[in-house]
Amino acid sequence: MKFARFLHDAKPRLGVVKGHQLFPLSDGHSIQAIAADWPAVQSKVESDGMAEGIDLDDVTLLAPVARPGKIFAVGLNYRDHIEESNMEVPERQVWFTKAVTSINGPYDNVLIPKVSNLVDYEAELVAVIGKSGKCISVEDAPNHVFGYCVGNDFTERAWQFRSPQWSLGKSFDTHAPIGPWITTADELVDPHTLTISCFVNGERRQYSNTEHLVFTIWDMISELSQAMTLEPGDLIFTGTPGGIGAAMDPMQFLKEGDLVKTEISGLGYIENTLTQEH
Amino acid sequence: MKFARFLHDAKPRLGVVKGHQLFPLSDGHSIQAIAADWPAVQSKVESDGMAEGIDLDDVTLLAPVARPGKIFAVGLNYRDHIEESNMEVPERQVWFTKAVTSINGPYDNVLIPKVSNLVDYEAELVAVIGKSGKCISVEDAPNHVFGYCVGNDFTERAWQFRSPQWSLGKSFDTHAPIGPWITTADELVDPHTLTISCFVNGERRQYSNTEHLVFTIWDMISELSQAMTLEPGDLIFTGTPGGIGAAMDPMQFLKEGDLVKTEISGLGYIENTLTQEH
Repeated sequence: MKFARFLHDAKPRLGVVKGHQLFPLSDGHSIQAIAADWPAVQSKVESDGMAEGIDLDDVTLLAPVARPGKIFAVGLNYRDHIEESNMEVPERQVWFTKAVTSINGPYDNVLIPKVSNLVDYEAELVAVIGKSGKCISVEDAPNHVFGYCVGNDFTERAWQFRSPQWSLGKSFDTHAPIGPWITTADELVDPHTLTISCFVNGERRQYSNTEHLVFTIWDMISELSQAMTLEPGDLIFTGTPGGIGAAMDPMQFLKEGDLVKTEISGLGYIENTLTQEH
Repeated sequence: MKFARFLHDAKPRLGVVKGHQLFPLSDGHSIQAIAADWPAVQSKVESDGMAEGIDLDDVTLLAPVARPGKIFAVGLNYRDHIEESNMEVPERQVWFTKAVTSINGPYDNVLIPKVSNLVDYEAELVAVIGKSGKCISVEDAPNHVFGYCVGNDFTERAWQFRSPQWSLGKSFDTHAPIGPWITTADELVDPHTLTISCFVNGERRQYSNTEHLVFTIWDMISELSQAMTLEPGDLIFTGTPGGIGAAMDPMQFLKEGDLVKTEISGLGYIENTLTQEH
């Protein structure tokens, strides 16, 4: 199934996407609650009054998870990106975080902050945790994924590197757009065979496949969960492929009005316009 | 005022601490909601049926904020710690994060994880954000603090340094005990004049004063808010003074059964026993 959040009478609401239609669920559902018990609640959700669909063009989609407890993101995790950067494959997973206040809707504007203007894109597959778990084995990790969505780990490069720790530069407001909806894991044959692309004003800048992940999604879930309990709705940004603006020659950063489209096969796309913070 | 969360009929509840008594507030209050409108709601809270007090010894205190949206923590921020480490004063604030799932009660056990046993203490003053804000000036920063509490930024040193990014090693479950309650900012003459200590099994290991902060609390709030909206209940761990176990010769890490007491003048103390994760 595909779960979207959208504005309904100016209030956020959950719905199921089928084709180009959105079928609202009755009030009281939360994506975290559904994720926690997935797939046990699937039949209950499917039978929940989804009689009348709305055309997707007629709704404003929101970030499918508004307030994840955690957003962890891994660095240097695509072989093509490591190769183009002349870096070594990291021995350990390199984890940083994005603040919950950086979450943004799939078609919402992304801010060029007042304090700097070195904003860059990073197309990423995002895994959404389902069943809670601690010390999860690599083998058991698939049982803890609720689904996947498209994300872009927008990054303010000056602030990423103004100290040795990246989490502040990765946490600017609006810099974690996700969506357009969550596709449950059962709808994918294998999340490690997806084409991932990023376009800036129609020009393809990133183009890779999740088969090139250095650490698999199962590796990542296992590693994180050795330290911390993963909870329903927690987000894992799984790394970006080659082609970022900072690696271009000359470097190219995003300007006001630029349109960034991030697309993953089977998951849809998100599209965000850069605007200046005032 | 001093706000504590505690267990009441097996449910979390908010109360006001006066002397050695805890006065329960009526249901429906949340610390985030009070923080958001502080001090405007002070008189309303004070008149809220606090007739009957409970002896503090008869209640189980919980972390005063259970689910902060963000926990940001600053590295190398005490002059005495920088000096003992033979480091340079950092030019920029060095920020990492602790996961929300690392939050722990003031008197609860702290886990030595299965995967490693290099757990260390870091006594810290914790600022609790009140009024929401973005791009806050240093001058206006005091208006965005709800209050302060004692915290310990427990750290798994092996995992802190197994990659260049610290946030994973800082995010183990139970590694962010806070409490024993939040003392509202108006009760402190100046948060930059507080004695801070950490004791391990009664031996004083850390002993400093917040006057030695390199970046003040106002500097920190201003810096973070250039990137992100600070929200009610967000926590800022303001750095640890010298005396950590990893800086001792030979290095000393915490063992099962060790009792770590963290104390700040005017704010009380928290006390946590190390236990092995199974």
